[in-house]
Amino acid sequence: MIPSKVFKNPTILKILDYYKNLWALSYTSAIAHWDLETYMPVKGSMAHGQALGRLATIRQKMFLDKVFVNLLLKADAQGGLSDQERGIIRILNRELKFYEKLPSKFIEDFENLTNTATIIWREAKEKNDFNIFEKPLVKIFDMNRQMAEYLGYKDTPYDALLDQYEEGLTSNKVGPFFDEIYKPLKDLLNKITKSIKYQIQNQRVRPLQTVKYDKAKMAKLNVKVLKTFWPEYGKNFRLDVSSHPFTTSFGNNDTRITTWYHKTDFGRSLLAVIHEFGHALYDMQSADELEMTPIAGGSSLVIHESQSRFWENHVGRSREFIEKFLPDMQRTVHGSQLTVDSVYAYFNKVSAGTLRVEADEVTYHFHIMLRFEIEKGLIERKIKSSELRDYWNAKTKEYLGLEPKTDSEGILQDIHWSGGSVGYFPTYSLGTFLSAQWAEAIKVGPSKWLQKHIHQFGSTYTLEDLLRKNKIKFDPTVNLKYLQDKYSKIYDF
Amino acid sequence: MIPSKVFKNPTILKILDYYKNLWALSYTSAIAHWDLETYMPVKGSMAHGQALGRLATIRQKMFLDKVFVNLLLKADAQGGLSDQERGIIRILNRELKFYEKLPSKFIEDFENLTNTATIIWREAKEKNDFNIFEKPLVKIFDMNRQMAEYLGYKDTPYDALLDQYEEGLTSNKVGPFFDEIYKPLKDLLNKITKSIKYQIQNQRVRPLQTVKYDKAKMAKLNVKVLKTFWPEYGKNFRLDVSSHPFTTSFGNNDTRITTWYHKTDFGRSLLAVIHEFGHALYDMQSADELEMTPIAGGSSLVIHESQSRFWENHVGRSREFIEKFLPDMQRTVHGSQLTVDSVYAYFNKVSAGTLRVEADEVTYHFHIMLRFEIEKGLIERKIKSSELRDYWNAKTKEYLGLEPKTDSEGILQDIHWSGGSVGYFPTYSLGTFLSAQWAEAIKVGPSKWLQKHIHQFGSTYTLEDLLRKNKIKFDPTVNLKYLQDKYSKIYDF
Repeated sequence: MIPSKVFKNPTILKILDYYKNLWALSYTSAIAHWDLETYMPVKGSMAHGQALGRLATIRQKMFLDKVFVNLLLKADAQGGLSDQERGIIRILNRELKFYEKLPSKFIEDFENLTNTATIIWREAKEKNDFNIFEKPLVKIFDMNRQMAEYLGYKDTPYDALLDQYEEGLTSNKVGPFFDEIYKPLKDLLNKITKSIKYQIQNQRVRPLQTVKYDKAKMAKLNVKVLKTFWPEYGKNFRLDVSSHPFTTSFGNNDTRITTWYHKTDFGRSLLAVIHEFGHALYDMQSADELEMTPIAGGSSLVIHESQSRFWENHVGRSREFIEKFLPDMQRTVHGSQLTVDSVYAYFNKVSAGTLRVEADEVTYHFHIMLRFEIEKGLIERKIKSSELRDYWNAKTKEYLGLEPKTDSEGILQDIHWSGGSVGYFPTYSLGTFLSAQWAEAIKVGPSKWLQKHIHQFGSTYTLEDLLRKNKIKFDPTVNLKYLQDKYSKIYDF
Repeated sequence: MIPSKVFKNPTILKILDYYKNLWALSYTSAIAHWDLETYMPVKGSMAHGQALGRLATIRQKMFLDKVFVNLLLKADAQGGLSDQERGIIRILNRELKFYEKLPSKFIEDFENLTNTATIIWREAKEKNDFNIFEKPLVKIFDMNRQMAEYLGYKDTPYDALLDQYEEGLTSNKVGPFFDEIYKPLKDLLNKITKSIKYQIQNQRVRPLQTVKYDKAKMAKLNVKVLKTFWPEYGKNFRLDVSSHPFTTSFGNNDTRITTWYHKTDFGRSLLAVIHEFGHALYDMQSADELEMTPIAGGSSLVIHESQSRFWENHVGRSREFIEKFLPDMQRTVHGSQLTVDSVYAYFNKVSAGTLRVEADEVTYHFHIMLRFEIEKGLIERKIKSSELRDYWNAKTKEYLGLEPKTDSEGILQDIHWSGGSVGYFPTYSLGTFLSAQWAEAIKVGPSKWLQKHIHQFGSTYTLEDLLRKNKIKFDPTVNLKYLQDKYSKIYDF
């Protein structure tokens, strides 16, 4: 079972054999999670939570087994390892550090807190009342701060959290990045909103997003697009429905994505499919030899998001894509006269709104900056929880020019904090900016560029190493230029 | 989490806390298995097999942990336990015996053999060639014989295997049971086939089973039936599609059944749903306090099958059921003039055939007798594998009056042996016979009879103890009389 071509070091082989147990636990946990989001009867979630909680503690215990830890120490001290072998040690040492530094009691408490908090968050969002969610939110930030203390940091506890989601990411990298893009994006947004085209578009009574579609027909269109992108669709890859789109991979031969169906706004369902396909492709094209090892599947969150955003923005929102599937779109959307121009305008409409998930390519990053500031402020105890809602609303006004009418449209809109994730959001913006650089690279590269340069390596390399390997330096101006070029054409300025 | 009303003994409480880890492993394995049969992309099965194999060895290792085994020994020596507490010890000791007596190498080898054998069996069945499957089949019987040696037995190694599926079942109980029912069933079948009604029915050109139906409409009918039986349908219970109907339960609040759709023979899809509902109801009505303990869910296979067969035969095949759902059936089946009489005749048609899964209430047991004889003969080395196909065909001729035309209709028809199950089949007949006794008991009992007398106990009791508790003695004449009464009316003799 252990891949023999890539892995030859005897210590590594022993590590991989033991790791297969940990992989098996992750595999079934992931299946159970996919099930929870897709087919599980509502009342089944309690047993799900109980089982997954136990599995997490079993996994921690097995990970900290002396035999395994000693193998890791031994491998770490060895020279002459291949890139993949070093990748394995790097990934496992990161996890080991996490398990060693966090008491298992803390892990279990955190798991229980976030399980409950997600349910409370759902209730608060439904009832449109932040007060219901305030207490669990404060606890989640308290525990995240505690986690940062356990894990250790140099400048700010927030850096320990950023590092959880993107290895080596710090506030000193995120802050200047946002500073660099803020003004150009603001200027671009101003130019767009002042353009005549924008003014006309905003007066239209029935833009395409309000036209109804039939769910079954929409699903058919989604599958047709996926089959075009990936002819193996159905054999090692499938599409399901969930309350929020996501991708999950159980290996190269079983990767699944989901989308949603709102019965209007067909681009929302379709672009979600294309976005998730970008994630899926990354997972499916990780080299077969890496299967069931710690470096199988996508590397970091930034690279992952750069894949999904590449497909969503640079493929799905392109004129070429719309041309190819226009007849199918026309068959899917009720009584509408879709043209390439009208769909292109609809897919690329810029408009500041209060909801992150509905934001366009230009305004999206303001949503992320807002969250970055709040997360950092809360972790550094510079914002009080009692000021939170007002702070959110004021910052939305500052960045986007409008205020959320309700908590559900404001501070309650995202699921991340309820699930315990603090420090996750910046990867969305970084990934999106990086995707423009892949788009540039692909233009001059061979076909299968992504597979050859990124996908096959799984998580062998960190983001920085992968960029270095591909001789690409992270450069926000590439995406800024792409946005400027694209939207000056669309809005005619 | 640990139920406090039923379980008070401190040792039992410790056992249950540890057991929750084992339960969590079983829970996620079961979800993964359901996924395999319903939604998994075909190419995902390799990773599935690898993960489940590892989980099985993790579970064995955790089960054999000295701390846990000592707790079991301690509890075993204690008096004053409740029935439920004794049930827990009984079930866990059975599993402990299995894990202790079988080397883990044997368990892993057996797992690998049956994983491969199932794939080979599918190929053999498709290609209609027993020769392809002969070798793995011989190995499976060899390993089953070896398993019997490990586990120990008194009279014949086959008894050790029977006991795996039905605690305490032996050849000395199964043999006389089949002897008792053989002649009466043969006589009944003779009377039926000689009746004028049978002769007329066999001449009809278009019996109902050949009429086509629409899959989506059929699924709607199935769900309507389930919602009538179980108004909570959708909240803690759902219906899916698989290549062979089955039931799986992840707890009282998440039980799932599947059915199949052949687009003709609508009773086959509907009666499968009703059959599986019988299994599901048993699992869903196990007392809440037993959740996540070793005695949650149905008790033995015989009792389980007695539940499914009760619903299938005594409810689904009844005139009352057909009357209630006739308009829905009419809407579902294309261009047919369904009447209560025609559907009743179709649901209860007796006709000897070569396929077990399509057999009626009268001829079904001949299929089981045949398998019982072959299994016992192979385990006791009285039948050679080279004679197997001829033996199967000759016995089919003897019992059912006709010979399989192909291996797929004959010795290759069942999945059980390829999955390693030897000694399973007799529970089907025993359960079916027992179901007639429940039907009798329910007639004079209160509503919710099944919940009160059987379901709530989970697997607290063995079959024998449960019968004793309900003051019912297993009596094959009850089902024989039911069949005689029913079919003499249908076939007018």
